[in-house]
Amino acid sequence: MSPKLKTLHVDLGDKSYPIYIGAGLLSDKSYLDKHIHGKQVMIVTNTTVAPLYLQSVCELLDDYQVEITILPDGEQYKTLETVNTIFDALLGAKFDRSATLIALGGGVVGDMTGFAAASYQRGVNFIQIPTTLLSQVDSSVGGKTGVNHDLGKNMIGAFHQPKAVVIDINTLDTLEQREFSAGMAEVIKYGLLGNADFLQDLEANMSDLMNRDVPLIIDAVYRSCEDKARIVAEDEFEAGNRALLNLGHTFGHGIENTLGYGTYLHGEAVSVGMLMAAKLSELEGDLTATCVERVVQLLNQANLPCEINKEITEAQLFAAMSLDKKAIDGNIRLVLLRGLGDAYLSQDYSEDNLNQVVRDFIS
Amino acid sequence: MSPKLKTLHVDLGDKSYPIYIGAGLLSDKSYLDKHIHGKQVMIVTNTTVAPLYLQSVCELLDDYQVEITILPDGEQYKTLETVNTIFDALLGAKFDRSATLIALGGGVVGDMTGFAAASYQRGVNFIQIPTTLLSQVDSSVGGKTGVNHDLGKNMIGAFHQPKAVVIDINTLDTLEQREFSAGMAEVIKYGLLGNADFLQDLEANMSDLMNRDVPLIIDAVYRSCEDKARIVAEDEFEAGNRALLNLGHTFGHGIENTLGYGTYLHGEAVSVGMLMAAKLSELEGDLTATCVERVVQLLNQANLPCEINKEITEAQLFAAMSLDKKAIDGNIRLVLLRGLGDAYLSQDYSEDNLNQVVRDFIS
Repeated sequence: MSPKLKTLHVDLGDKSYPIYIGAGLLSDKSYLDKHIHGKQVMIVTNTTVAPLYLQSVCELLDDYQVEITILPDGEQYKTLETVNTIFDALLGAKFDRSATLIALGGGVVGDMTGFAAASYQRGVNFIQIPTTLLSQVDSSVGGKTGVNHDLGKNMIGAFHQPKAVVIDINTLDTLEQREFSAGMAEVIKYGLLGNADFLQDLEANMSDLMNRDVPLIIDAVYRSCEDKARIVAEDEFEAGNRALLNLGHTFGHGIENTLGYGTYLHGEAVSVGMLMAAKLSELEGDLTATCVERVVQLLNQANLPCEINKEITEAQLFAAMSLDKKAIDGNIRLVLLRGLGDAYLSQDYSEDNLNQVVRDFIS
Repeated sequence: MSPKLKTLHVDLGDKSYPIYIGAGLLSDKSYLDKHIHGKQVMIVTNTTVAPLYLQSVCELLDDYQVEITILPDGEQYKTLETVNTIFDALLGAKFDRSATLIALGGGVVGDMTGFAAASYQRGVNFIQIPTTLLSQVDSSVGGKTGVNHDLGKNMIGAFHQPKAVVIDINTLDTLEQREFSAGMAEVIKYGLLGNADFLQDLEANMSDLMNRDVPLIIDAVYRSCEDKARIVAEDEFEAGNRALLNLGHTFGHGIENTLGYGTYLHGEAVSVGMLMAAKLSELEGDLTATCVERVVQLLNQANLPCEINKEITEAQLFAAMSLDKKAIDGNIRLVLLRGLGDAYLSQDYSEDNLNQVVRDFIS
């Protein structure tokens, strides 16, 4: 095994699984081999990732009956209709309940492949090979799968854990810098919401991370997944503290919903959202101006946006935010900060303060 | 509580739930009330059942925000597309994760509503009110939900347990006699596969059962659900003995697939299939001719078919049978009988005997 390999065991009882994180894992068949039990393997990927990594993955699978489904690339295709094309392929190839689905790509591919695996014959195995920084630190842990509906994001889906996640950091070589930054927003989120040590290390190393220093990236992905796994293990079905993972997301989804998907990348909207949460925390008297400034600095270093530089009104943003499914009984529940590395859930902040933050960010 | 009420507790750890079986339960709101936790309730039913029972159920729910989805009636509508209309309604009414779905109808309504509940926002509560004998003794237990695909029945779905099942035997008053018989095939199945005492009682009482004797029906539904619950509790995710529940079903699905759905009702095809399994068991030397004759008598008493009186060839039936998803590695696994009330799984019977049974039934 590579000295650069880190393995994280996600502990979920009989649904536990390993996350392998390293450089060059896609040239070693053992990581997949251990977790495929039948003979039938369906690789699901998209038109962007297929030319880059599909052949490498196929070469790891010469002992199996391999079928391939290539989906169109983009959030707009994350629909029940697209998932149905995976079912068509599975049934067309007469795949049975011993089949394994492999998701090769970013979060959209992972979410749809996971949902197809959850639903095909009421559940078959799947393995994730996330190829973007965002999906490596986000979709690797949590078992959330699903698709969008015209009336809301991620409204249809299932909790379905993978049998393994194989993260080859080398796949980031082909990731655009803007996408890399967007993924880094989620990495920063883990530091901000519950890990002050990690946050300090990110502040110390952000410039090297942005230059794609491999050991530092492996460490950051590992620690992100570790933090998420700890939170998810305590709350698998999202009844309580798992909501802390939504730091920046209620604001972020509001921004995305208002501007339409694609204007900001998800991580970029989350970046602005995290800063809005920090500013609201400052107005609530929980966070010092110095702490907020540290957040701004770190987001800047990661080339992430700190303001909404688009046409958008307060009313639009509020309307979009209360559509967010984290809303309970009409009040907007937000993740706020008591300090850097210390988040909490609140429905109990001052509405005036919230209004002021929204005004400050859209003007 | 009615002296005619029987309650069965299906024991599945933190997914346990009660099945209430009685006459007139749809005039008592307490059965539903206990199991609805939020304020939002969506009743899903179909065009046949809605005029009969929708109003009664609505009257039990005047404390809730009630929405209604009426699906077209028929197995041909058991598709992802139809389930999507339930999602449309849920999102249109802004239902959140505290919502409860109520399935009011037969197996098709239950399967689709259950799958919608499993997948909406990754899982919400649901309650079943099965209104056909088949769905009362079959879908009440097991947590199987899902839809058909052009290339196979029940290929897309989830395991999702209801919070409660409310069986009002009075709903059978509006069930056509042919549908009632088809449900009785599944009742007889439970006796045949593992409960010799129940089988003897069915033989003694079949004429009264067919005349809709209420206490006898309550007892038969209770014992059917009890037997199924015992088998399912031992094997929730269908890895082993749960397959005994498929007695008559591999033959039955073969007949249905070949003739097209609607020629035989599911229970009618299962009736023929059970007799084919009994005949094969006789040829294998496990069952006496007298026992097979008892099966024929009982099916006759229930007005169920004992032969395939349609144009169908051996090749067609075999092709359809090996498409059945219970097939493993190409061999057809069948449920056979060692005696009446004693079923077992076999891939080890004589092929000649199987061929002879198929020949005898189609000629």
